[in-house]
Amino acid sequence: MTSDEIKTEVLAMGARAREASYQLAKLSTPQKNEILMAMADALVVREAEILAANDRDIAAAEENGLTTAMIDRLRLTRERIAAIAQGIREVAALHDPVGEVIREWTRPNGIRIEKRRTPIGVIGIIFESRPNVTADAAVLCFKTGNATILRGGKEAIHSNRAIAAALQEGGAPRGLPNHSIQLIPFTERESVQHMAEMDQYLDLIIPRGGAGLIETVVSLARMPVIKHYDGICHTFVDRNADLEMAKSIAVNAKTQKPSVCNTMETLLIDEAVADEFAPVIATAMREKGVELRGDERFAALAGSAAEIKPATESDWTTEYLDLILSVKIVDDLDAAISHVNHYGSHHSDCIVTGNAEAAERFLNEVDSATVFWNASTRFSDGGEFGFGAEIGISTDKLHARGPMALEELTSYKYRIFGEGQIRE
Amino acid sequence: MTSDEIKTEVLAMGARAREASYQLAKLSTPQKNEILMAMADALVVREAEILAANDRDIAAAEENGLTTAMIDRLRLTRERIAAIAQGIREVAALHDPVGEVIREWTRPNGIRIEKRRTPIGVIGIIFESRPNVTADAAVLCFKTGNATILRGGKEAIHSNRAIAAALQEGGAPRGLPNHSIQLIPFTERESVQHMAEMDQYLDLIIPRGGAGLIETVVSLARMPVIKHYDGICHTFVDRNADLEMAKSIAVNAKTQKPSVCNTMETLLIDEAVADEFAPVIATAMREKGVELRGDERFAALAGSAAEIKPATESDWTTEYLDLILSVKIVDDLDAAISHVNHYGSHHSDCIVTGNAEAAERFLNEVDSATVFWNASTRFSDGGEFGFGAEIGISTDKLHARGPMALEELTSYKYRIFGEGQIRE
Repeated sequence: MTSDEIKTEVLAMGARAREASYQLAKLSTPQKNEILMAMADALVVREAEILAANDRDIAAAEENGLTTAMIDRLRLTRERIAAIAQGIREVAALHDPVGEVIREWTRPNGIRIEKRRTPIGVIGIIFESRPNVTADAAVLCFKTGNATILRGGKEAIHSNRAIAAALQEGGAPRGLPNHSIQLIPFTERESVQHMAEMDQYLDLIIPRGGAGLIETVVSLARMPVIKHYDGICHTFVDRNADLEMAKSIAVNAKTQKPSVCNTMETLLIDEAVADEFAPVIATAMREKGVELRGDERFAALAGSAAEIKPATESDWTTEYLDLILSVKIVDDLDAAISHVNHYGSHHSDCIVTGNAEAAERFLNEVDSATVFWNASTRFSDGGEFGFGAEIGISTDKLHARGPMALEELTSYKYRIFGEGQIRE
Repeated sequence: MTSDEIKTEVLAMGARAREASYQLAKLSTPQKNEILMAMADALVVREAEILAANDRDIAAAEENGLTTAMIDRLRLTRERIAAIAQGIREVAALHDPVGEVIREWTRPNGIRIEKRRTPIGVIGIIFESRPNVTADAAVLCFKTGNATILRGGKEAIHSNRAIAAALQEGGAPRGLPNHSIQLIPFTERESVQHMAEMDQYLDLIIPRGGAGLIETVVSLARMPVIKHYDGICHTFVDRNADLEMAKSIAVNAKTQKPSVCNTMETLLIDEAVADEFAPVIATAMREKGVELRGDERFAALAGSAAEIKPATESDWTTEYLDLILSVKIVDDLDAAISHVNHYGSHHSDCIVTGNAEAAERFLNEVDSATVFWNASTRFSDGGEFGFGAEIGISTDKLHARGPMALEELTSYKYRIFGEGQIRE
């Protein structure tokens, strides 16, 4: 395809999505749920077709020498398709925030004002190789009455096309408006740019993937972007911490699932308890296979318990996503708060302390989406929050911050009820 | 100044604002209110200084041949300064949303989650020539605990500097952190670009001004933008309207203050009542001096009552901000909704009808920030909503939609209270 053809087609998809969004906004919750159930059924019915499409992606991936881990992320099986379908049925069962009255009041002149949740409109989602994201993102957006334009990684193009077609065509007989779920059908990179620029059609764009993708979208986008940069999460062990609890929380935050964004990357220890806690935590982390990188003070106190590599300035800003931990001894609570605000990614940070005043200061002064007192940062998650679903974790501060679920996929409007009032 | 010097200084202002934002977040509501009162006093105390600075701007404006209307917008007087100071005292009296618990719940594992309002952080505001915006914007941002970087029009540079200095220095003795309110002190245009690019320091940017300014900011900004594009507002007179009420609302929406964004620009008339209503409204508008531009059907029905110019396609997308009205006869409610969604600016739109079902459809299906049933669009306003203040009216759908006041200048964080919980 020529560049002009790609741009024309992406813009045409945008116009169709906008039209679909007006139809979607009219659907009732029972209608949407019925459509979701039909979508889930369609995935199962079309299982053979989807697996055949996936085989083509896997074959191409093997030919192109992708790593085993990447191929595994790409691979669909009967079980994975069944799990995706089950996930859709669970979304059908979730509470629909659209139509909720957020606030309602009457003015002295008698006009009644109702602030009411609405769909956002059209949401663009750009993601990398996992084909299940196609379904996850599309159904959460649909449940909240939004049209979606999906742009997945080229490695998964056949799988994504098959899944998107199953959802759209599976839902159509139950009233899913045409073009509610559209997948960019070609793999040229420039489609990302056209999506980012068409703010007349996209109300929001969500890039899900690595730093390069997010940077591209942020620098080009004319519409709001909700993104998830790094998760450089901290645990601070305050001088008034129960050190057994501190050890348990720190080990959990680092090792329970090291590859994810809410895992601790830096441990801060109050110097008042460092003599006692440093060797204890060094031993505990060593036993879990964690590589330790410490400042000089930590190395001096814990060096006999485990090998400590010197931490460099870049360690404080690195998201390892691995069994590696940077450790720093800090003078006090103020130094801990400063370190977190300066080096962190404003994602999820924890203080372990028995002192309510210290906890209150940490919770208030650390400028992060989620701040914990005496609990593992691993709880920073839509499922753990009880949201029932998660479209991502936002490191932005506007519209959505922290774990994002259905409510964050809505906007609002003011509906005003008068009896002929005019302004004097 | 060289380009490098400008960039260096804007970035330095950003870093100082970020530092100030951490200090601002710690202030209590009484502390903030005390600072606001001191700011108001400082404006009055420094009245002579501010008026002298304003004289320099006025002299330059006259030399540069600015229009009388522009010079009037620029001009400060003792009364205007007193009004600005009074406005600040009123902001002190408003409810502070920061610290409010939006929601609170406990999970089965015992962790308690509190979703709590926080300041956003650092807000950049770019505006044109009116110097009172310096104070209005800065104090609303300050009340909600945000640091501001203000960039006003070059015509008002001396006035803006004097006002910003009065606010910052007036508040300092009562505990206003350094650099809470900073004004870009030079007039080169490129400072706008540097602001729009420094997403490490600015959490939000609000352009207030004409289409050119907004377009520049939207195309460059890496951080969220909240903006106000056109106000192309509609009134639809449905077949079940009380036509006396319809006339009263339409005349008010068009003529009560034609130069503002919530004024009606297009009137849509249901063909079922067009025979009767078209000549009536044409006469009423003519009496108010309104120029009418109509489609053929309207011209045919109302041409004897007033001169009707033919409306062209561009009339349906023009924000006149003047005593001009475009009028179209539509087939029915569906055609009206389609017209508003297609040609409007999603700002404020009204249906006049006695039919609750038609009203409900219009309110739900018109995709605008504020939708009215039987009331003038002129009520789309923070003051009329009872917000006590207004930083603008957003035509965006994320974070803030419609009239924006203090609450829209806040973000939130999740504060989580545990007793050592770890994730299994």
